[in-house]
Amino acid sequence: MSRPQPASQHTVRRHNSALVLDAIADAPGSSRAAVAARTGLTKATVSSLVDRMIGAGLVAEGEAQARSGPGRRGTALHLSPTGPHGLGVEIGVDYLATCLVDLTGRVRARWVRPSDNRASSPARVLAKVASAVRTAAKQDVPIGGVGVAVPGLVEVAGGSLRLAPNLGWREVDVRGELTRRLELDVPVLVGNEANLAALAELWHGDVAADFLHISGEIGIGAGIVVGGALFEGVSGFGGEIGHLSVDPRGPACACGSRGCLERLAGQDEIVRAAGVTGVDELLARLAAGDRTATTAVRSAARWLGVALSGAVNLLDLPTVVLGGTYARLEPWLHEPLHAELDRRVVSAEWSPVRVVASSLGAEAAVRGAATTAVRAILADPDPYVTSVLA
Amino acid sequence: MSRPQPASQHTVRRHNSALVLDAIADAPGSSRAAVAARTGLTKATVSSLVDRMIGAGLVAEGEAQARSGPGRRGTALHLSPTGPHGLGVEIGVDYLATCLVDLTGRVRARWVRPSDNRASSPARVLAKVASAVRTAAKQDVPIGGVGVAVPGLVEVAGGSLRLAPNLGWREVDVRGELTRRLELDVPVLVGNEANLAALAELWHGDVAADFLHISGEIGIGAGIVVGGALFEGVSGFGGEIGHLSVDPRGPACACGSRGCLERLAGQDEIVRAAGVTGVDELLARLAAGDRTATTAVRSAARWLGVALSGAVNLLDLPTVVLGGTYARLEPWLHEPLHAELDRRVVSAEWSPVRVVASSLGAEAAVRGAATTAVRAILADPDPYVTSVLA
Repeated sequence: MSRPQPASQHTVRRHNSALVLDAIADAPGSSRAAVAARTGLTKATVSSLVDRMIGAGLVAEGEAQARSGPGRRGTALHLSPTGPHGLGVEIGVDYLATCLVDLTGRVRARWVRPSDNRASSPARVLAKVASAVRTAAKQDVPIGGVGVAVPGLVEVAGGSLRLAPNLGWREVDVRGELTRRLELDVPVLVGNEANLAALAELWHGDVAADFLHISGEIGIGAGIVVGGALFEGVSGFGGEIGHLSVDPRGPACACGSRGCLERLAGQDEIVRAAGVTGVDELLARLAAGDRTATTAVRSAARWLGVALSGAVNLLDLPTVVLGGTYARLEPWLHEPLHAELDRRVVSAEWSPVRVVASSLGAEAAVRGAATTAVRAILADPDPYVTSVLA
Repeated sequence: MSRPQPASQHTVRRHNSALVLDAIADAPGSSRAAVAARTGLTKATVSSLVDRMIGAGLVAEGEAQARSGPGRRGTALHLSPTGPHGLGVEIGVDYLATCLVDLTGRVRARWVRPSDNRASSPARVLAKVASAVRTAAKQDVPIGGVGVAVPGLVEVAGGSLRLAPNLGWREVDVRGELTRRLELDVPVLVGNEANLAALAELWHGDVAADFLHISGEIGIGAGIVVGGALFEGVSGFGGEIGHLSVDPRGPACACGSRGCLERLAGQDEIVRAAGVTGVDELLARLAAGDRTATTAVRSAARWLGVALSGAVNLLDLPTVVLGGTYARLEPWLHEPLHAELDRRVVSAEWSPVRVVASSLGAEAAVRGAATTAVRAILADPDPYVTSVLA
């Protein structure tokens, strides 16, 4: 009697596939028997699931291991370095970046190109993005998913970009548009660049499980990580530290408010006040001890200190990670920023705030976007396996 | 052979006692059989635990229920209204309050008295608190625990008060001091008043699971509730919205910073700017349309709007609850506060912020303190039961 498999069996396989792959990711080199011992599944179940995942290219077998007991010798299992890759794209205000990572999160290729996205329509920019994705997808590896980092408000339910003040974009269905433009049959995930940068910091950086990652670019955003998980608010709109009013009667901001941090300590304002053409020139001037450049950066640092003090007073987080341009400026930001934190954080004496420069630099957001795409496969491999084996 | 009961059996009883009491609290009137069905425990286990909890006064039996099947008729079980009560105390800047609640959280008695705690030493204030607790404990009900709300930084580990700028207190071991002064052999829990007020709002108020509760008194504090749980930061120092710098170059604050919200929109500043002697007079003047009073409250509302916009931009919470004095001032705060939120919250168009006045009024913090004490017993009843039956 042939009947469709009951749904519950699919559900069990889906759940067990995730368990098995997680065990392999967590202890590379494990044998099937070790995976069975760790997951509590039978060796037959593990073998069947592992065989499917080898067939789909998620898992690779290494050398046969020394015999440690009766039965067939175990072979070492690993996430396959030639398995599905995550392709990250970042739509910056003045650049496009892509990044290709393998299943272990290792960066295989990256690419950044200046692109004045402020001056272009969303359709033109998304056409460029689609072209960049197609170019990157021509590498000799399968693409398992695309992650897109955007500098604006992304609703968690739906992945639509509501507003990107620095791009001048409103209501752009980035996920829908890119899915249509790409000829790849893979999921497209869209997220806020500051949140994705914070996740990259959590996964690949040197900090613990509770921190605020602040991305300083033309826009300023924060990703808040609490207990090892991203805190993005009820709709996904949290972390908008760039629009904290640090000088409520100050200059008008593109968002409609006044005296936002971004307006007083963003990259455009620092570059303008320093009288330079860009960040590279700024760094050269700072290194040479130029007074105008130093004053500009110190002023930004003080506003940054006001905003971060507010965030720490509300959230009581022990660590702030400076990302993006702020990571490069850290030596000059350090002293005035700490002076504000010491003065304004009411609990500073008992819960001092550590400020560190991100080791991931400008690539944090695009790397987070790429890693998110592979993590989605690792967390739930069965749909991918089924689509490859079909 | 008589041997000490193995630890694991204690652990099992402790766990099961909490399960059974939770089932009774959640469905008052349940029979032992219904509790067994709900918890998955055997009827014999449930009966034995219920009998212990009746003996300790936690659970009371009501009428025998109509027979719905074979066997003994079930009797309805309830949390006992004469069981252990929680005694809450709030050390305000200019008052002391106490509140007695039963196991269901119902308020049985409350009491507020002006007390200029700023002008007294911690030792004198704590002597007054101990005396108030002893008076309240003379009611004809058992006290199961004492909760203390303080207007300052309380470290979650240890319950020590680190700093209360408006009291001028530093490093006061409130828990240790009160435990020594009281002749009650019950736990003393110490918490930040804004956090306890937010918990009272969560347990007894009209709002959902995600909100920021802002307590406006002489000091201003916030309690942040996310997904039905208090978010208090890594050390318990979160929610210090009163020390958000809304005017970084503004007037000096007792905390050492400048232009803190508390300094510009706290009760003392409103009363001073309105030229009145206290909040009752302020409300009378506002009701009469007095221009100076109206201007003072509108100015506070704008600063409050700046600070709350910052909090919402960071946290993306859908609801703000105005507590303490702000609840009474809400009709006059409403318009200018919303104007700031509309202008400064970058996601306001997609995730509008609802602002409501707390229905709990000035008693929220002390009620939260009292309820915390009974909730500690409900969450883990066995130690209380064992101490009573011993």
